[in-house]
Amino acid sequence: MSSQAPHSTLLIPGPIEFDDAVLQSMSHYAESHVSPAFVKVFGETLTLVRKLFQSTKPSAQPFVISGSGTLGWDVVASNLIEKGENALVLHTGYFADSFAACLETYGAHATQLKAPIGDRPSFEQIEQALKEKPYKIITITHVDTSTGVLSDIKRVTEIVRRVSPDTLVVVDGVCSVGCEEIAFDEWDLDVVLTASQKAIGCPPGLSILMLSGRAIDRFKSRKTPPSSYFASIANWMPIMQNYENNKPSYFATPPTQLVHALHTSLSQITARPMAERFAIHAQTSDRVKAAIADLGLRQLASQPESQAHAMTAIYLPDGLTPADVLPSLLKRGVIFAAGLHKEIATRYIRFGHMGVSVTDPARNDIDKAIVALKEALTEAKQAKGL
Amino acid sequence: MSSQAPHSTLLIPGPIEFDDAVLQSMSHYAESHVSPAFVKVFGETLTLVRKLFQSTKPSAQPFVISGSGTLGWDVVASNLIEKGENALVLHTGYFADSFAACLETYGAHATQLKAPIGDRPSFEQIEQALKEKPYKIITITHVDTSTGVLSDIKRVTEIVRRVSPDTLVVVDGVCSVGCEEIAFDEWDLDVVLTASQKAIGCPPGLSILMLSGRAIDRFKSRKTPPSSYFASIANWMPIMQNYENNKPSYFATPPTQLVHALHTSLSQITARPMAERFAIHAQTSDRVKAAIADLGLRQLASQPESQAHAMTAIYLPDGLTPADVLPSLLKRGVIFAAGLHKEIATRYIRFGHMGVSVTDPARNDIDKAIVALKEALTEAKQAKGL
Repeated sequence: MSSQAPHSTLLIPGPIEFDDAVLQSMSHYAESHVSPAFVKVFGETLTLVRKLFQSTKPSAQPFVISGSGTLGWDVVASNLIEKGENALVLHTGYFADSFAACLETYGAHATQLKAPIGDRPSFEQIEQALKEKPYKIITITHVDTSTGVLSDIKRVTEIVRRVSPDTLVVVDGVCSVGCEEIAFDEWDLDVVLTASQKAIGCPPGLSILMLSGRAIDRFKSRKTPPSSYFASIANWMPIMQNYENNKPSYFATPPTQLVHALHTSLSQITARPMAERFAIHAQTSDRVKAAIADLGLRQLASQPESQAHAMTAIYLPDGLTPADVLPSLLKRGVIFAAGLHKEIATRYIRFGHMGVSVTDPARNDIDKAIVALKEALTEAKQAKGL
Repeated sequence: MSSQAPHSTLLIPGPIEFDDAVLQSMSHYAESHVSPAFVKVFGETLTLVRKLFQSTKPSAQPFVISGSGTLGWDVVASNLIEKGENALVLHTGYFADSFAACLETYGAHATQLKAPIGDRPSFEQIEQALKEKPYKIITITHVDTSTGVLSDIKRVTEIVRRVSPDTLVVVDGVCSVGCEEIAFDEWDLDVVLTASQKAIGCPPGLSILMLSGRAIDRFKSRKTPPSSYFASIANWMPIMQNYENNKPSYFATPPTQLVHALHTSLSQITARPMAERFAIHAQTSDRVKAAIADLGLRQLASQPESQAHAMTAIYLPDGLTPADVLPSLLKRGVIFAAGLHKEIATRYIRFGHMGVSVTDPARNDIDKAIVALKEALTEAKQAKGL
């Protein structure tokens, strides 16, 4: 039983439901950001980020910074690519457009490789594109929150290493870290950026990044200085290294309560093998997808191999919009999200299945949501005379 | 009585002690950032920021963004000044050096007007500097957390309007907003940037800004696009306007729990006249400064008119360092901060007196701290044979 105030179950693709202990960490009493107790908690949190990414290479560097997940794009765009250099942006939904806009703000040339809605660029297209010009970075949205499309970052990285080995592989893992398999070292990734409020199960307000030694080296060999101050790797790296070495350090005040909450959530997550966590998210996702099919509904993500395990984007029956269905779900104590992809936003809804709603056997969130969805659809169709 | 776990009293110049209700808001259950309930809370919070700044002009625009106070510098440097333009940076401690570094990161020319440690540039020097070349912005650290020096932002703004009326007046109010008098409209300020964790009494993790209509106009007439993405006014302004008009909107996920805490804290602060809040901070500061003098100690801020009401930076007796005194204070349940100004960091300590420690009559934090300081100094001198 949760000790939280009664509330509808939040099953959007982030923020997600919290574990009680995580939420209790948010109300930690006032603490100096350079006190020995907090330095220890922050340092341990950074080490837990390594475990989250299954990374053991000392050359890899975790970052935990006050900000939204979006800030991670600025970190990449202002540090790992320079004005006039090329970025290949794999497009599987809304978030690639935004990442490209961020890259161009800092002067990079972003070339988008787009797939039809619900699909992803093919491996052949990616290989072909990489051969056409030299790309400093390639960006991949691991799970695009607007479409629920999953990218195969392992396979894409293999292609990059074969065809364009110097290109840095940058993964936007905002909607994947903590539930989709990521083996940072083994897959030879260069950057994974994420946020606290999705499958990590912490409240929003933390930008979390993991950088490879190769990415750090590339940063150090920049010809021009980094073009951001708050998002500067040069400003943050000594801070992260000092805290992890149990030394206080100051660049900007860290959000102490959020760091406590992240410490609690990562301690819980990494207490079990990551493979087990990925498996239970995959099983739950399969169950959701089967239920969606049983209801005669289609997903945005058309192919099984490109369907995220963190969420499902569901086309509504013809004639229904999110406004016909979401209030009816809410009446049943379940919160889903409306569509986000501009071209088809009114035609679909999004169901997030991550974190405690999936892993805590004492909760019944997913089954409750499936039942609620069935009832809400029936109700909405009747109301519309469909 | 506080319902918080027992802990030493945090009297550093931020973060500060929290009110129970503020801290309880931090553990608000999971909520969608676009739900009607949260949209209302965020919208009201923005309106409360206007009250905090005693601003009623519809052309002024509040911002509440996930990030540290430092992020406010990037907002200024990437939006309100362009490459090659001049910024006059009034230097009263560590934070002017950092703000200047941020401005230069984005290509501005920062000219620092420096005063000796503990002093501030004179009005004559400022007037002279403004006449020497055209400055797009002038930056003033209202209270420099490293020195406890207070600047007279009202008077400086009068000089700017007389001598260089187009120059935007940018106030770094991280250590002043919520305890030092600020009349945003009446004083004709253009930007005040601050953070949640100082006199506002909220946990760290929010960058808070107020921009004048003049600043917004100047932004809109930029010749080049803004040079940041996460810190872009263009990206955030529609979001803030929509939320304040009770409409959900998305650019990056707001830190919902921190916004609740800020809502609670600003509701408490603005429930009483701001003048009363400024007065009680001034009275408490006077009491602290008198006690410091009674102990035979000097402040870094040499002149009464340039001594902050939020904090006191105190020179230690010759032969003592912070390491001799801070542990002894901690033993007595009081946490002060070490020195921060590089040149003299080992020669002084900092005592923050803001927020509930000052305004809550049920607390005895300040008197306890004064007694503890007296005892700790005696103990430290004895230990050193002084």
